[in-house]
Amino acid sequence: MQTNPEALKKQVKQMIEFRNDYSEGAHESILQVLCDINRQQHRGYGEDTYCRQSEEILQKMCGQPQAKLHFIPGGTLANLTVIASILRPYQGVIAADTGHINAHETGAIEATGHKVLSLPNKSGKITASDIQMLSRQHWEDETHEHMVQPGMVYISNTTELGSIYSLDELKNISNVCRELQLPLFLDGARLGYALASRGCDLDLQDIAQYCDVFTMGMTKQGALFGEAVVILNPDLQTDFRYSIKQRGGMLAKGWLMGLQFEALMQDDLYFDLSKHAVSLAMQLREGLEKLGVSFFADSPSNQQFPILPNKVINKLRDSFGFQIIQKADENSSIIRFCTSWATREEDVRALLEAVARAIA
Amino acid sequence: MQTNPEALKKQVKQMIEFRNDYSEGAHESILQVLCDINRQQHRGYGEDTYCRQSEEILQKMCGQPQAKLHFIPGGTLANLTVIASILRPYQGVIAADTGHINAHETGAIEATGHKVLSLPNKSGKITASDIQMLSRQHWEDETHEHMVQPGMVYISNTTELGSIYSLDELKNISNVCRELQLPLFLDGARLGYALASRGCDLDLQDIAQYCDVFTMGMTKQGALFGEAVVILNPDLQTDFRYSIKQRGGMLAKGWLMGLQFEALMQDDLYFDLSKHAVSLAMQLREGLEKLGVSFFADSPSNQQFPILPNKVINKLRDSFGFQIIQKADENSSIIRFCTSWATREEDVRALLEAVARAIA
Amino acid sequence: MQTNPEALKKQVKQMIEFRNDYSEGAHESILQVLCDINRQQHRGYGEDTYCRQSEEILQKMCGQPQAKLHFIPGGTLANLTVIASILRPYQGVIAADTGHINAHETGAIEATGHKVLSLPNKSGKITASDIQMLSRQHWEDETHEHMVQPGMVYISNTTELGSIYSLDELKNISNVCRELQLPLFLDGARLGYALASRGCDLDLQDIAQYCDVFTMGMTKQGALFGEAVVILNPDLQTDFRYSIKQRGGMLAKGWLMGLQFEALMQDDLYFDLSKHAVSLAMQLREGLEKLGVSFFADSPSNQQFPILPNKVINKLRDSFGFQIIQKADENSSIIRFCTSWATREEDVRALLEAVARAIA
Amino acid sequence: MQTNPEALKKQVKQMIEFRNDYSEGAHESILQVLCDINRQQHRGYGEDTYCRQSEEILQKMCGQPQAKLHFIPGGTLANLTVIASILRPYQGVIAADTGHINAHETGAIEATGHKVLSLPNKSGKITASDIQMLSRQHWEDETHEHMVQPGMVYISNTTELGSIYSLDELKNISNVCRELQLPLFLDGARLGYALASRGCDLDLQDIAQYCDVFTMGMTKQGALFGEAVVILNPDLQTDFRYSIKQRGGMLAKGWLMGLQFEALMQDDLYFDLSKHAVSLAMQLREGLEKLGVSFFADSPSNQQFPILPNKVINKLRDSFGFQIIQKADENSSIIRFCTSWATREEDVRALLEAVARAIA
Repeated sequence: MQTNPEALKKQVKQMIEFRNDYSEGAHESILQVLCDINRQQHRGYGEDTYCRQSEEILQKMCGQPQAKLHFIPGGTLANLTVIASILRPYQGVIAADTGHINAHETGAIEATGHKVLSLPNKSGKITASDIQMLSRQHWEDETHEHMVQPGMVYISNTTELGSIYSLDELKNISNVCRELQLPLFLDGARLGYALASRGCDLDLQDIAQYCDVFTMGMTKQGALFGEAVVILNPDLQTDFRYSIKQRGGMLAKGWLMGLQFEALMQDDLYFDLSKHAVSLAMQLREGLEKLGVSFFADSPSNQQFPILPNKVINKLRDSFGFQIIQKADENSSIIRFCTSWATREEDVRALLEAVARAIA
Repeated sequence: MQTNPEALKKQVKQMIEFRNDYSEGAHESILQVLCDINRQQHRGYGEDTYCRQSEEILQKMCGQPQAKLHFIPGGTLANLTVIASILRPYQGVIAADTGHINAHETGAIEATGHKVLSLPNKSGKITASDIQMLSRQHWEDETHEHMVQPGMVYISNTTELGSIYSLDELKNISNVCRELQLPLFLDGARLGYALASRGCDLDLQDIAQYCDVFTMGMTKQGALFGEAVVILNPDLQTDFRYSIKQRGGMLAKGWLMGLQFEALMQDDLYFDLSKHAVSLAMQLREGLEKLGVSFFADSPSNQQFPILPNKVINKLRDSFGFQIIQKADENSSIIRFCTSWATREEDVRALLEAVARAIA
Repeated sequence: MQTNPEALKKQVKQMIEFRNDYSEGAHESILQVLCDINRQQHRGYGEDTYCRQSEEILQKMCGQPQAKLHFIPGGTLANLTVIASILRPYQGVIAADTGHINAHETGAIEATGHKVLSLPNKSGKITASDIQMLSRQHWEDETHEHMVQPGMVYISNTTELGSIYSLDELKNISNVCRELQLPLFLDGARLGYALASRGCDLDLQDIAQYCDVFTMGMTKQGALFGEAVVILNPDLQTDFRYSIKQRGGMLAKGWLMGLQFEALMQDDLYFDLSKHAVSLAMQLREGLEKLGVSFFADSPSNQQFPILPNKVINKLRDSFGFQIIQKADENSSIIRFCTSWATREEDVRALLEAVARAIA
Repeated sequence: MQTNPEALKKQVKQMIEFRNDYSEGAHESILQVLCDINRQQHRGYGEDTYCRQSEEILQKMCGQPQAKLHFIPGGTLANLTVIASILRPYQGVIAADTGHINAHETGAIEATGHKVLSLPNKSGKITASDIQMLSRQHWEDETHEHMVQPGMVYISNTTELGSIYSLDELKNISNVCRELQLPLFLDGARLGYALASRGCDLDLQDIAQYCDVFTMGMTKQGALFGEAVVILNPDLQTDFRYSIKQRGGMLAKGWLMGLQFEALMQDDLYFDLSKHAVSLAMQLREGLEKLGVSFFADSPSNQQFPILPNKVINKLRDSFGFQIIQKADENSSIIRFCTSWATREEDVRALLEAVARAIA
C-alpha cells in the first residue's frame, strides 16, 4: 500500500480546541523516554521493572506501603473492572446521578450485572448523609431482599461538573462508608486537576487514607494513555489481576503505562501540568466573568461551564472547539470549556477576545 | 516526588528475549510521527482524521468499500467486544479448544454471558466439517432448546500453535458458515505474521472476502498498542461503537491508534516487519533442526515450539527468555520461541549457538 | 422421618390477611382438575396438550392468531426473561421509577446486563410524551454513543400503585413506541384486576393490539402459580424457548401451568375472580372514605393505599395483616390493603369495623 | 370465553411413558394436603410456617443444625442461583463434561458470567484425582492469571447417566475440595433415586457432611414442582435470599414448596417413592438383560440406557414414550427408559413384552 508520506504530519489546524482535555498527545518528556527505551526488552502484562518501580513510587507518595498499583488503558474500563471486582452479584454501587458510571459509560456497570444506585447530585457531588439515608432506607425496608443491596460507593474528583471534594466532605463520606462496610472508590480520571484546584484542602495522602480504591488519570494529564488504579484495602487486592485480564484491560505492553507513570511522577511533573491547566482555567473564568458571563456550576478546576447566548455560541463555533452540554433556556445554552496540561495561554486569550467580540 | 532522572533509561539488559512478540516498543517511524504531531489537536473517541483515513486505506487494501474499521486497545478486549456484539444471549461461539478465547482470556467471553463451544483442534485449527457436524448435532438433537445454540465461529490466524489457514481451508469454513448463517470472526492478532508465513497462499483481500469480521493486530507487529477491528458484514456494523464504549475500549485518544495504523500501512511497513520476523523464525527453526531438535507443532510463522531436554532448557534460561508450554515427557518440555518485527539476527544466531553448546 | 400427620393441616389462623393477593392457594376448580388428571402422562417442558390448547384459547381471546403463549413460574423471572430476550447488550428498558423491575426485583434486569432507564412516575404510570422526550434527548445528544440506548418500554397494568392505563394512554404509548421502534412490554401480573377495575375502558384485545409482549398473571388471580407470557410481535418470538430454558424458567411439568390457564379461562373464571376482588376493594375504599380516611393514590383496583395514623395502624396489627409502605408524616403512614380472588366479604367488614373502632 | 368443560379431563392416553420421571402430577398425599389447606392464609416468599418447619425437619434428617433450606421452582434455576452466588467473577465451576450444567441448561451458568471447567466423565462421574490435577495444572501454569480460576466443584447424584457416587468417592472428592478450598455442590435433582439405588452405601447425613451445598429434587420424586436447596457451609448462607430473588426463583407462594417438602418427608414418603421407582427400573433392566439387551451405562438407578436395534426402537415407538440419546452404530441406538414414583408395574411388564415381541 502506497500512501502519501506527508499526509500523517500535515493535518491542517482549523480550530483551537477547548472541547476536552485529551486533544493532544503527551508531554514531551514522556515521548522522549519512550524513544530512549524503545528497543529495550520487557516482561509483558505489567510484570516489568517500570510497573514495579511505579508501585514503589506510589506507595511512598501515598504513605501507604501496602498499596497495590495496576494500570488499565482507559477510564471506563478501569471503573467497570474495579466495581465488578468488589460487588456481590445482588449489590449495586451508590453514585451521583451525574456520575460518569451512571450517565456516560453506555451501561458498562450494568453490563457487568450491577445497578447504579443514584443519588441526586449537589454540584456533581454526593454527601455522607445521603449515603447514610439510602443505606438506612434499604435496611429498614421490610422487603429489602427484593431490592438491590448497597455494596460500595463511587465518587469522582473532580466531578463531572468540575467541582471538588473538601477534606471534610471526603472524611465524612469515608467514615460513613467504613461504618456501613461499603468500600469507597474514588474515580480520579482528573485527580491531578482536583488537587491543583483553587481551594483544594486535601492531598494525595488524604485520598489514600480515606479511600479503599482510587484511580489517578494519566490520559487527561500528560500521558498518551492509561489510568493508574490504586488499591489500598488489602481485602480488595486479591486476584485483581484476574479481573483485569477478564475484562480485557491487561495490555501486553503494560510497561508502556508504568513508564509513563514514572515519567509523570518525576519532579512532580504530574502536579505541575495540572497546575498549569487550572491556572489557565481560572484565567478563562475570570475573563468571562468580566464579560458578564454567568456559570452553570461553580468549578474551581479545569472544566468551566459558562452559559452563553446561542448567537454567541454560533459565532464561536467556527474557530473554537467546545462541547454544548444542554439548553439553559430558549436563547442560551450551557457549554463546557476544558483546559489541559497542553493548553496555551495565547489560546485562552484568543478565546476571551472572541467571546468579547461575539457578545459586543 | 523526586525520582532518579536516569532510572527510566538505564534498566540493564540481562536477557535476550524470545518470550513473546511484544517485548519492545514500536517501529521508529511510529515514534517519529507521534513526536511530529504531538501538539496537534484531535477529536476524541476515534472520530478524528487519522481514524477516518485509516478506514479508507483499509477499504482499498481489502477491496471492500463497505468495510468499517474500529480500534480497540487490546486483543482480549477486541475479542469480547466483537463476540458479545454478535451473539444472542443463548448462543455460543464455536472455537478450537486451544483458541485464545477458550484458553487464555480468563473467561472473558463467558463474562459477557456466552459459552465457548470448543472443537478439538488440529494443529491449532478447526475444520469446516467439524463446524458442520457440531451444528448438525445441535439441530438434530430433539432437546436442542436445552443446549447452547451455535451462533458464530471464531478462528485465529496464525493460531495459538503458529499454524496458518490455507485459502482452501478458509473458503470451506466460510462456505459452511454462510450456509449455516454463522458469522465468521478471524482473530488476527498475528495476521501480519500469518500472511508472511512460509506457504501462505492467501492475502488480505481473501481474508476480507471470506470473513464477516476480522482483526489486524498492531501490538505484536510494530505499533505501541492497538488492534484494528474490521467489520465486513453490514448487519454487524450497527451500533458497534456503543459496544466498544460499553466494554471500555473507546480510548479518549483514539487517534493514537488511527495514526499508528496509517503509519504501519505506509509503504507496506506492516508486511515488511512481518516478513522480517518470519524470516528469522525460519532461520531459527532450520538451525534447530540441524541440531536434531524436533518440534511439537509444524509452524511456518513467527512462533516456534521446539521440544528440548530439561537440562538444555535450564542452561538456556540464564541468558534467554522464552515460555515453557508444557511437559513433553519426564525429561523434556515443549517451549516457545517468538521472533518479532524487532528481533535481531545476531540474537537468533546467539540463541542457536547457545542451544548447540547446551546440547553438546 | 416421622412427623406429626396433623401438623400440615392445622396451622392456627391468627390473622386476617390483606397483606397481598397471594396468601391463599388456588381456586377450587383448579385443584379439582389437578386431582382429576393427576396420573395422566404428559410431555414435559410445555410441549403438552394443555399448553397447546391454552395457546389456541389465548389466540381467540386476543383476536391475534399469530400470538405465542409461554408459561414461566414467577413474575420476576418472566420479566427478566422477556427483557433480556429483546434488548441488545447496550440497550436499556424505559420504565417508571416505581416500576417493579426498577424497584423490587433485586436488580434482576441489571443482572442480565441492562440498565433500567427510569422515568418519574405519574400515579405509577408513564406517558407517551415522557417516552418521546427521553428518546429525543438520547438521540440529540452528540455523545449518545456514551449513553445507554433506549431499547424497549416496560409498563405494568395495574401499576405498583394500583392505577390503570386508559385506552387512550395505551394507544398513545403504543404509537410512540412503534414510531421509535421500541417494543412495548406490559407486565400484567395483575392484568385481570386491571381489566376489572372501575373505569377501565380497555379489554384484552386492546392489550394484544397495542403491545408487543404482555403477561397475564395467574399467581395472584386464582392459580397456584405461573405467569402467561404472550408474544404478539413475530420478530420477538424466535428462539424464545431457548431464553426460557437459559434463565431457568422452563418447568419440567410445564403442563401444570397450561392446565391452570385453561381452567382459569373456562367460563371466564379469571375475569369473574378479578371482579370479585375489585368489588371488595371498592367496598373497602368506600368504607374507609366514610370514616374520613384519605388515600396516597387514587386506585380503582384491588390494591388500596390509605393513610392512617400510626396509633390506628398499631391497633390493627394484631388482627390484620397488611404492608406498611412508607411514612406519610411524623404521625401517620401509608399502608397497603390488598383484596384478591379469595378475599371474603365478611373479612372486609371486619376490617372496616376494626378501623372504625381504632379511629374512635 | 366458553371452553368445553370436559376437555380438561379427557385427554386420551395413547402412550405408556418411560420418557422421563416427570410425566405425572404429584403423589396423592400432596394433592390432599394442598386441598386441605387451600384457603388458609400464608406469608409470602418462603417466610411461612411450612418453610420454617421444613428447615427444622431437614436439619434433623441431616444431623446439621446449622443447615439452611430454601426452595426454588426448577433445577436449572437452582443450579444457576447456587453457582452464581458462590463464584467470584473470574472463577469457573468444575463439572463432568456430561454434567447437566455443561450440557443441558442452554448455557445458564455462562449467562451468569462463569465458565464450566469440564472434566472427562467416568460413567457420568468425576474423580477426586481429576479435580486435583485440574487445580494443580491451573496453579502451576505461569500464565494462570490468563485462565479461568477453579472456584467450586459441581457433581450430580444420580448423574446424567444414572450412576451414583459411593461413600468413598464422595469422601475423596470432599477432602480434595476442602484442601483446595473449593466449595462442593451436589445437584440432587434425583437424590432420592440415588439413595434408593442398588449398591448405594451412603445416606443423607453423608451427603450433608461432605458437601457445602446440595439440592433434593422434588419435581421428579413425588411433588408437583420444586427443588430444595440445602446450604451447609455458613459462609455460603449470607444473603442467599437476595440471590434467589435476583435470579427470579423467589415464588410468591413459597409455602407451596414448603408444604410439599413436609408432606414428602412425612413417614419417609420421599424415600419409599424412590425405592418404588428403582425397584421397577431393576425389574426392567433384568428383563431386558434376559432378552440379551446390552446397556450403554451400568446404572443402578431409575434411568436405564439400553442399546436397541433401530428396527426394535421403531416398533416400540407407537406404544411407548422414551428418549433416543444417540446412535450406537449404524443399526442401533442408545435409548433411555425412566421409571418414577408413579410408574406402574404392569407398564414395565407391558414394555418388556413389547421388546420381546419386537426382537423376535
